[in-house]
Amino acid sequence: MTEFHTSTAEGLISNFYNTYDLEEMAQKVMPKGAFGYVASGAGDMFTLRENIRSFEHKLIVPHALKDVEKPDVSTTFDGNQLTSPMIMAPIAAHKLANERGELASAEGVHRYNTIYSISSYSSFDLPDVTKALQGTPEWFQFYYSKDDGINRHIMDRVKEQGIKAIILTADATVSGNRETDARNGFTFPVGMPIVEEYLAQQTGESLKSIYGSAKQKLSTKDVENIASYSGLPVYVKGVESPEDVEPLLAAGASGIWVSNHGGRQLDSGPASFDSLSLISKAVDKRVPIVFDSGIRRGQHVFKALASGADLVAVGRPAIYGLALGGAIGVEQVFNQLTAELEIVMQLAGTQTIADIKNFDLRDNPYDPGVLSNDPARLKLY
Amino acid sequence: MTEFHTSTAEGLISNFYNTYDLEEMAQKVMPKGAFGYVASGAGDMFTLRENIRSFEHKLIVPHALKDVEKPDVSTTFDGNQLTSPMIMAPIAAHKLANERGELASAEGVHRYNTIYSISSYSSFDLPDVTKALQGTPEWFQFYYSKDDGINRHIMDRVKEQGIKAIILTADATVSGNRETDARNGFTFPVGMPIVEEYLAQQTGESLKSIYGSAKQKLSTKDVENIASYSGLPVYVKGVESPEDVEPLLAAGASGIWVSNHGGRQLDSGPASFDSLSLISKAVDKRVPIVFDSGIRRGQHVFKALASGADLVAVGRPAIYGLALGGAIGVEQVFNQLTAELEIVMQLAGTQTIADIKNFDLRDNPYDPGVLSNDPARLKLY
Amino acid sequence: MTEFHTSTAEGLISNFYNTYDLEEMAQKVMPKGAFGYVASGAGDMFTLRENIRSFEHKLIVPHALKDVEKPDVSTTFDGNQLTSPMIMAPIAAHKLANERGELASAEGVHRYNTIYSISSYSSFDLPDVTKALQGTPEWFQFYYSKDDGINRHIMDRVKEQGIKAIILTADATVSGNRETDARNGFTFPVGMPIVEEYLAQQTGESLKSIYGSAKQKLSTKDVENIASYSGLPVYVKGVESPEDVEPLLAAGASGIWVSNHGGRQLDSGPASFDSLSLISKAVDKRVPIVFDSGIRRGQHVFKALASGADLVAVGRPAIYGLALGGAIGVEQVFNQLTAELEIVMQLAGTQTIADIKNFDLRDNPYDPGVLSNDPARLKLY
Amino acid sequence: MTEFHTSTAEGLISNFYNTYDLEEMAQKVMPKGAFGYVASGAGDMFTLRENIRSFEHKLIVPHALKDVEKPDVSTTFDGNQLTSPMIMAPIAAHKLANERGELASAEGVHRYNTIYSISSYSSFDLPDVTKALQGTPEWFQFYYSKDDGINRHIMDRVKEQGIKAIILTADATVSGNRETDARNGFTFPVGMPIVEEYLAQQTGESLKSIYGSAKQKLSTKDVENIASYSGLPVYVKGVESPEDVEPLLAAGASGIWVSNHGGRQLDSGPASFDSLSLISKAVDKRVPIVFDSGIRRGQHVFKALASGADLVAVGRPAIYGLALGGAIGVEQVFNQLTAELEIVMQLAGTQTIADIKNFDLRDNPYDPGVLSNDPARLKLY
Repeated sequence: MTEFHTSTAEGLISNFYNTYDLEEMAQKVMPKGAFGYVASGAGDMFTLRENIRSFEHKLIVPHALKDVEKPDVSTTFDGNQLTSPMIMAPIAAHKLANERGELASAEGVHRYNTIYSISSYSSFDLPDVTKALQGTPEWFQFYYSKDDGINRHIMDRVKEQGIKAIILTADATVSGNRETDARNGFTFPVGMPIVEEYLAQQTGESLKSIYGSAKQKLSTKDVENIASYSGLPVYVKGVESPEDVEPLLAAGASGIWVSNHGGRQLDSGPASFDSLSLISKAVDKRVPIVFDSGIRRGQHVFKALASGADLVAVGRPAIYGLALGGAIGVEQVFNQLTAELEIVMQLAGTQTIADIKNFDLRDNPYDPGVLSNDPARLKLY
Repeated sequence: MTEFHTSTAEGLISNFYNTYDLEEMAQKVMPKGAFGYVASGAGDMFTLRENIRSFEHKLIVPHALKDVEKPDVSTTFDGNQLTSPMIMAPIAAHKLANERGELASAEGVHRYNTIYSISSYSSFDLPDVTKALQGTPEWFQFYYSKDDGINRHIMDRVKEQGIKAIILTADATVSGNRETDARNGFTFPVGMPIVEEYLAQQTGESLKSIYGSAKQKLSTKDVENIASYSGLPVYVKGVESPEDVEPLLAAGASGIWVSNHGGRQLDSGPASFDSLSLISKAVDKRVPIVFDSGIRRGQHVFKALASGADLVAVGRPAIYGLALGGAIGVEQVFNQLTAELEIVMQLAGTQTIADIKNFDLRDNPYDPGVLSNDPARLKLY
Repeated sequence: MTEFHTSTAEGLISNFYNTYDLEEMAQKVMPKGAFGYVASGAGDMFTLRENIRSFEHKLIVPHALKDVEKPDVSTTFDGNQLTSPMIMAPIAAHKLANERGELASAEGVHRYNTIYSISSYSSFDLPDVTKALQGTPEWFQFYYSKDDGINRHIMDRVKEQGIKAIILTADATVSGNRETDARNGFTFPVGMPIVEEYLAQQTGESLKSIYGSAKQKLSTKDVENIASYSGLPVYVKGVESPEDVEPLLAAGASGIWVSNHGGRQLDSGPASFDSLSLISKAVDKRVPIVFDSGIRRGQHVFKALASGADLVAVGRPAIYGLALGGAIGVEQVFNQLTAELEIVMQLAGTQTIADIKNFDLRDNPYDPGVLSNDPARLKLY
Repeated sequence: MTEFHTSTAEGLISNFYNTYDLEEMAQKVMPKGAFGYVASGAGDMFTLRENIRSFEHKLIVPHALKDVEKPDVSTTFDGNQLTSPMIMAPIAAHKLANERGELASAEGVHRYNTIYSISSYSSFDLPDVTKALQGTPEWFQFYYSKDDGINRHIMDRVKEQGIKAIILTADATVSGNRETDARNGFTFPVGMPIVEEYLAQQTGESLKSIYGSAKQKLSTKDVENIASYSGLPVYVKGVESPEDVEPLLAAGASGIWVSNHGGRQLDSGPASFDSLSLISKAVDKRVPIVFDSGIRRGQHVFKALASGADLVAVGRPAIYGLALGGAIGVEQVFNQLTAELEIVMQLAGTQTIADIKNFDLRDNPYDPGVLSNDPARLKLY
């Protein structure tokens, strides 16, 4: 295994105007395989595309003269005052994007002040990341081992760090069909200390072998076990079917995380946003809903909240910010989305996050046509 | 601030066949930042595109042998005989397009004989524009100040000019997310004498700072205040939600102006034309409806009138006409759209504007496919 | 007026595989203005595109094992045995495509054996065309003059030729917005002897001035007048609204011709094929229905017949055949469409034209996506 | 007739990541005419495109935590244990793709262990192919002769080989409108020994003349005759209309094969997948359903099974595998689709083929937009 080097950027990113720009810019500073791993999706990348396109299936009809000024994006969740309902999505191996990896992203999230989700496949170990967070609320995304001893050991360590919730990944019991990774011959050039007990080797593993090392045969029983052993709230991530809600709540899930893993796992499934209102109806406010997959704009955040989400997780854009500006870059991405959200709130006639949650979107019966993030159109003039 | 120079064109524009041509031609004679400001939209420019595409959601089914000849586009509005129901939309800073700015556009509108809307952000002062209009009906688009004294002062001046109505802009309490302007580093290189009392500097301000100087916290109370202080009819501009109609009428609005600000403010909202029939149903003929956002063709005017509009405001095309031909160019744009409208009226089987208003459009259940104003298709043969 | 020269081709066209090919090939042998006049449509050419795209709104679901062999395309209409229900659409000035103009197209139609529609704007006079037809049934497309004396004179001449029906053009009381013609500065370089009495000059007139010379103020009264003076069946061409059917039948129309003039007149109206079943329901078999606008394939003919048409008129493809192969070329185009139709009939499980008329198409709820006649796709392999 | 040479490849194909890649790669190793014959479709290739696009009309919504591990793709059909429900579709003249033709494809299918369908137009004779199959179940696709004696002779030979079922091709009584073949001047450069009795010449025939030599006037009576003479189950292939099911079952069909011949026969008909659930409802589990036309992905197999198919036939991809890797290549294609299917099963929450059959797909009300197999998108990163 040759040494791996990626971006060491730290500082304000200049000349970007939206998160689409960041993808183009990050492609230039990250190694090809690492960038391909982050940016691509599974199979035909249908679900990846639909994740973004689907936001145009519902429209924000502005309300006139609603007495709004300086809209307030802040929210309180589980006793924590957050800058906004946007949180950091769990993502493997931040070292792919920046040498300082999770240390920098945690620092950036601390600066912005929101929930940080650390992946089991973090490239830094739990205590280091927790330290970098300086008290910012931290959640742990669990890739469950086949070995219950290892699972208990990991949970013990998680609790030691004061982590506030466990996210059980339900949509990744095997690797999605990541053709980009296959074409690029991508394997992880960085280690994953949290799960080193169940990995065959320290670096050079493919996602397929890593996911293969985790437990495939997950069931609602695992929710019960995690909840009872850890005593922590368990969020089940990767829920898209309303029928799954009842059994998950019965098993003790403390929250439902609507996601299709950013279009990286099961291709040919629905856009995450298209599933959100169905899930929201099934949950009926009994537990919080977290949403991810496709967030690139402030208006996407608005639409997700108006469709039932309580928190909205940001993934790829934050990683591009990390590649381009380290901790500062991560904070800047959240600030950019926040600034966009504030404009939308003001123009839509909503003063608070609660107003957004009560906002009725209009169904768009028409095809959205071209992809909105087509660079040729965005830079037309 | 370096000096700003733009087109000084005055005279007939040659070699244009529709208003799409004008956009391409104007791009060549206007400074990049100024053109970008006029042509672009907010965010993904989804709403900008939909504004035009949406006209194909309804179809004009021609009626055969309806005894039509030389259809009559004239209309009477508020006691004024107008050449057609097409009026001049309020647009900031006409000097961006032509050194003679609002003086020339007012002259052009006078030649055509229709209502002229002057923006608070006009690059010429009220008396000069009123004079150029030579008695043509004039409406004033109000960007309300935070300072009530300034508001009253502006209304006093408006009334002095004999202006016939006030348009309260409801959809622009902050600047939309104008990425083109950001990319171009655009700030206004021209002054705005009407609102100079509430602007920080005479030139070099961004739209964001200008809109920020105006009042954010607008409410229906402001409609009441403007109506009562000015004694003039108040048109609320930027209405897209049918639920907003009742409170606005209760507050004393004399007309509803359906608009999304040409796709320049809240991106991800519906096409203005898609909202028009919903608003029209809610208004139910109690007050007049003005429509703008997306008008590029005579058939668009026809469809807007058939969907409930009483007046149809033309924006960007008139500004392109101004850039390319001054007063004559502005008149020519209105004449071009009029000529197109007359063909549509004759072929659809409608003799008068009243016939159009009674005309039933057919819903198009199919996706319109490619954008109609794709130059590659329009110049195919 | 400089002399006009166009194709003098006569003989079998080689290397074409469908009628789309012919358009590309004809563009090479016809003068630019003449080709543009034939190929283009009005305005945005939305209706032109939809005319072809719309055929994919309904699908032919084949029926298995229906005992079909050598399907029979022949039909009897008004006592005439025709090779197929495909007839020649009325089109102005065939000399634009071939020096032998209507003489050659008439000869081609005679060879194929079907109804020939001669336009008032034919570039050869009535007796010459009738002679070239050698007894093949002929219909006359009437562009009605403002002068009733001229109309009667034309009808007298029509009757002298033994013409069997009059087609009253209802959708062209003024010229559609033909931007291609305007861009090309196209005027007719050939004369129109049938209507020379009401044209200002023999050649060099624009379509706008020609249509302007004809009568604008057409009404159902004109149907009555033509029927009563000529004693011939009157087909009203350009009907797209079901509401128009009843008044037309009451006025004595002997047939309804569903058409939007090939997308050349009112742009922004529906595809002709999308209107056909609505009209068919309104007509309810009381009179025959002729259909045109968009026929490029045998399957289009099949779908039109299955949607209520009794005859299907072929326009542009025949003119391209004329340009590329004279009389033989025209016949070849009809033969090509016939061969395609026969394949469709055999594979769909329909032995006769009557079987097609009883065939149920399946609605296609999905967007047809790309234009089927995209050359890049048709020549992919 | 000049000698014909094609690929002689035998061995593992490298550097392909999905079956779309194979099409691009096969184009490089097969003669142009042969490749065009295999890859292209009829007419506008609308149905060809829709065959693939249509899979996005239904979506796989994954179910969370369903206790799945190492999903089992195996199935039992008619007493045979098969590796998966994927079988080899009947395709003419495998020698076009590989010198070893059906001998190699049979060997590949034997290695994979599934049903092999041999075409009447096989380029190797029945006994040779049967021998290469080494006991793997074999079905015979019958192109019925006009001559009943020949038909009986062929059936005698079929029975001698121990073939287990006869597939009666209902959708190819004449050749579809194969323009690619016409453009390429393609005729079969290889012989077809099984039907040599009814072909005019050994090589150099067009598909049109070959299909023309077979019987056109097929009816349900032929199903009865084949079933009664052969004593074998008869599968009717090319069924898309639910109304056809009842008569076919009444005539003794033992199975319904939903297919549009890969978009090669009747263009302008529905995607095969769009017909599948309609047929499935009509069949109501009385007989097995085989599905083909458009299978390129494991997820397509999943969706077909969930929509009522019992077996799913793979056509073009297997032929590309044959061209690129002989027997090994064919096996590899089945393995590739199997691997994709296993990922989908695991992620969707389905342990067995029976689970897939009970799986509810979600209707996708939105247009799938761009073709998923657009290489520019698939190789984006």
